Amino acid sequence: MKGAEKIFAEVALEISPMPAEAKREKEFALEICRILEKNLKGEGVECAFVGSAARDTGLKGDNDLDLFVQFPRDKSEDYIVKKTFEAARKIPGEWVTHYAEHPYLQAQLGAFKVEVIPCFRMAANGELKSAVDRSPLHMAYLQEKLTPPQRRDVRLLKKLLKTAGIYGAEISIEGFSGLLCEYLILNYRNLETLIESAAKWKAPVFVDLEGFYIDSTQPEFDAPLVLIDAIDKKRNVAAVLSETNFHKFVSLCQAFRRRQSRDFFFRPATKAPSRNEVAKKLKARGTHFLLLSFGKPELVEDILVPQLRKTASAITREMRAAGFGVVDYAYYAANNCGVLLELASSQRPSVELVQGPPVREEAACVNFSKAHSAALRGPFVKGDRIFVEERVTERSAKKFLSGLLKDARALGVGANLSAPLKGAAVLEDAELNSVSDDEAAELWKYLSARDYWL
Amino acid sequence: MKGAEKIFAEVALEISPMPAEAKREKEFALEICRILEKNLKGEGVECAFVGSAARDTGLKGDNDLDLFVQFPRDKSEDYIVKKTFEAARKIPGEWVTHYAEHPYLQAQLGAFKVEVIPCFRMAANGELKSAVDRSPLHMAYLQEKLTPPQRRDVRLLKKLLKTAGIYGAEISIEGFSGLLCEYLILNYRNLETLIESAAKWKAPVFVDLEGFYIDSTQPEFDAPLVLIDAIDKKRNVAAVLSETNFHKFVSLCQAFRRRQSRDFFFRPATKAPSRNEVAKKLKARGTHFLLLSFGKPELVEDILVPQLRKTASAITREMRAAGFGVVDYAYYAANNCGVLLELASSQRPSVELVQGPPVREEAACVNFSKAHSAALRGPFVKGDRIFVEERVTERSAKKFLSGLLKDARALGVGANLSAPLKGAAVLEDAELNSVSDDEAAELWKYLSARDYWL
Repeated sequence: MKGAEKIFAEVALEISPMPAEAKREKEFALEICRILEKNLKGEGVECAFVGSAARDTGLKGDNDLDLFVQFPRDKSEDYIVKKTFEAARKIPGEWVTHYAEHPYLQAQLGAFKVEVIPCFRMAANGELKSAVDRSPLHMAYLQEKLTPPQRRDVRLLKKLLKTAGIYGAEISIEGFSGLLCEYLILNYRNLETLIESAAKWKAPVFVDLEGFYIDSTQPEFDAPLVLIDAIDKKRNVAAVLSETNFHKFVSLCQAFRRRQSRDFFFRPATKAPSRNEVAKKLKARGTHFLLLSFGKPELVEDILVPQLRKTASAITREMRAAGFGVVDYAYYAANNCGVLLELASSQRPSVELVQGPPVREEAACVNFSKAHSAALRGPFVKGDRIFVEERVTERSAKKFLSGLLKDARALGVGANLSAPLKGAAVLEDAELNSVSDDEAAELWKYLSARDYWL
Repeated sequence: MKGAEKIFAEVALEISPMPAEAKREKEFALEICRILEKNLKGEGVECAFVGSAARDTGLKGDNDLDLFVQFPRDKSEDYIVKKTFEAARKIPGEWVTHYAEHPYLQAQLGAFKVEVIPCFRMAANGELKSAVDRSPLHMAYLQEKLTPPQRRDVRLLKKLLKTAGIYGAEISIEGFSGLLCEYLILNYRNLETLIESAAKWKAPVFVDLEGFYIDSTQPEFDAPLVLIDAIDKKRNVAAVLSETNFHKFVSLCQAFRRRQSRDFFFRPATKAPSRNEVAKKLKARGTHFLLLSFGKPELVEDILVPQLRKTASAITREMRAAGFGVVDYAYYAANNCGVLLELASSQRPSVELVQGPPVREEAACVNFSKAHSAALRGPFVKGDRIFVEERVTERSAKKFLSGLLKDARALGVGANLSAPLKGAAVLEDAELNSVSDDEAAELWKYLSARDYWL
């Protein structure tokens, strides 16, 4: 990869926080830590400034400061939450409670978004009392191991991934977490070697930084990438990474290896498409679009997105089972929530195969046969079940989908979505032109899906 | 099952050969045997009259006589075939050579269809020299074990299965062989007990008449019904029986148990449907029919039918992959061969997802991306592969199918069918009204598919 280092150096200048900025950040974080420790005097507490800002692996403009308040292990969770909250609230600011495994506080203090998280002290490979207890150990480990050039490469890797849309362990992304980036650079020594290696990755890839399994069998994690946590050998740091995103990264690394360019780090902002362009592209496909649009419930992304995904996949499954040809589908949470279905046609076939009970359930088979005595074909045995073929009375996709929504619960949609789904609008084809700009942008994303490096 | 025995007795009278008829048959067969043995004097040969006629388990009008000429095991296959053929051909009649594992002869001698089959003498559970060597052992075993009432029940069982269309181990049926019927009656003692038991069968069912595996683990045969051959413990007599036909039998037995009736043994002959009825029913379904009709090659059924099945399934797979909604399909060998496809619509969707190579094959991915640079969407990574979406240029099902036939070989159709398929006619919808009566009857079978006992 001739010329890669030159590009890395150039890009790094643009994406790294200024030294003065980084210094100010660190000083501010440590000052808050000292105050928290003072406010918790006698509790045996240490406050740790952790995360990418602390390790100098964050991108410019990323002003999140994570402060972990570590308590002795003999305390209860309720106790450490209560004490931490009291101590933090003495610091002037609008402290807002957030909930992960247990509650924590967040406030905008000047230029910085500060998070104060209570946790228990933990030893490497020791027992967790709560999921966040590892963070201070990660901090200590990485602070010691990562050299300054490696910190630069972590920043570059994050930017590369962010540009490709695969950075972040959020459930809506299923990509590479910051910690995973740091471990990868540490393991492969630098970004260039990581790219060279990842371009040849064949799933499953097993990375065991600390050699925990060097003399024993590797555990089975059923993931394309297994990266054993250096401070917890039972944990796969890449557990969230999806198969597609693993392969996107491999493909991205191959492309970078073929032609080094700063374009991999910076993409021109895609201008919002005009309503006309969206409408034209929708129509040009010659398929049938249905959009289920409904109010966005007040839920954090980590709860909303999985429910939305489950809903979209349940609807698609039902449509397919009913005989509709589903070309593809998508879902999004913009100002509204949406489930987009692209169908081969606005009507399903005029006949439908209806699955009956297994032959061994005699009584159920008798009832099924009776109930379908006027079937178009059947009943007949196929495999271990009986079936009939019925004439389809409701062939319209729009009407069928609206019918499904009447009993959204039975579909197995997310618990928090069954109420909003009842009031959902079902738009078809040209009606999609009436959605908000925000939603039109989501339609455009669907219509122009493309991995730019391919 | 009150009243079952009365029905059995009545039906048996109608389906059993007359005693005089059976006696004549037996005498005739033994006479031919004696002649064959005389003609083979000095060869150490025994001729055995085996099969259902010999065991009195055949149906009325079934005039097949199977004569097995058993040679010592030290002879070669060529030798025993040559000698048998010479000996049989001395008997006046039109002897025709047939081929199974090795050649045998067949002739119509008066009222009887006589088969003369050379084989090697074999001991129970001994080593086979050829697949037919077992038949004389089966004969000896069943002749000793089957009581006269059981022979009657074998005939009843065969008739029951024949009426349901699941009698016969031919590849076009995948049903119950005559031998399987005999073993089943032997194992369950009589037809009534068999029906009672089979009504409750849950696959896999394991029947080990001779208790070969009573003290050891049952072998795994991966079949819904495993019936261990009493004279060869490594063989499953029900190996040919399909999952569907196993369950058809279960379902049929349940139905008979619910309402005993002679209707299970005799169905009114279905009158040939008028062309008008077929046309009306085809049209009424509101779907799109395509019929591939081509000349029937001169092949025995055991070769033709599997090739036809493979062809139909390959075509269906290709149509589905291309985006056509296949409602159902069928194939047949009537005076012509036919593959019938019922589609949701005469056109496929306007867009098509095209699968590219796996990401790990970098060069192939680069080529694929180049070749599809004008794709509608993509290229993008999905799972471990890249894909594009292309606009479909040929949407017509008929034209697409005709295109497939141009390279029938590549489809993986049977070797003997690729030539006839080149000259195949592709008929759609109303054009199906022009097929022969023979083929119209096959269409009717498809259109009126139903298991009458359900």
